[in-house]
Amino acid sequence: MIKHLEDLKQDTIPEFRGGKGEVQITHFLEVDKGEFNSKGRLFAKNVLKPGSSVGLHEHVGDSETYVILSGEGLVDDNGDQKLVKPGDVIITRNGEKHSIENTGTVDLEILALILFD
Amino acid sequence: MIKHLEDLKQDTIPEFRGGKGEVQITHFLEVDKGEFNSKGRLFAKNVLKPGSSVGLHEHVGDSETYVILSGEGLVDDNGDQKLVKPGDVIITRNGEKHSIENTGTVDLEILALILFD
Repeated sequence: MIKHLEDLKQDTIPEFRGGKGEVQITHFLEVDKGEFNSKGRLFAKNVLKPGSSVGLHEHVGDSETYVILSGEGLVDDNGDQKLVKPGDVIITRNGEKHSIENTGTVDLEILALILFD
Repeated sequence: MIKHLEDLKQDTIPEFRGGKGEVQITHFLEVDKGEFNSKGRLFAKNVLKPGSSVGLHEHVGDSETYVILSGEGLVDDNGDQKLVKPGDVIITRNGEKHSIENTGTVDLEILALILFD
């Protein structure tokens, strides 16, 4: 089955997880359509404009992987503050916390994958 | 945990699944490191140069999702031939077949996610 970009579910969420600005989420797979085989709940591209962020939050019962596609940002990786750039992969396991902020001047594009534990 | 691009496992596989040329695979997560929580076995970027392809193959016991990041190609989507472009999502479920060929003039970059059924 092929879904085109215009068919993908899109969300715009303000102050996501207590963050600043908003996050635009383009969902590649949808839980409600059974597309995760019950193995996860998010496979998406998240876009943060400069100054926007996803607030610090803990993962409980699942793990999230971010892959930086473009732009740059500041990550809180379970307590460690680190600058990230395209190609970087941030893995936040069950029980760990993370946040990410676009500290650059262009959109920060992130792949996000959440798999259950 | 943060992995940088240079830390990621890379594979170059000739004639992948009976295809032409080679596929360059950059692994965001690794099965051997337990990074999939036993929920899947591939989360990667695949790059096909012009003329290269992944041959037609069936998925048994899992589902694969391709997301076209850049370039253009021809997909066999379980028997239907379709041209794909950036933003297109191809879902191949358990028991279905797919192939993909770079029919364009620039690299075809594909996200690939395999989740168990």
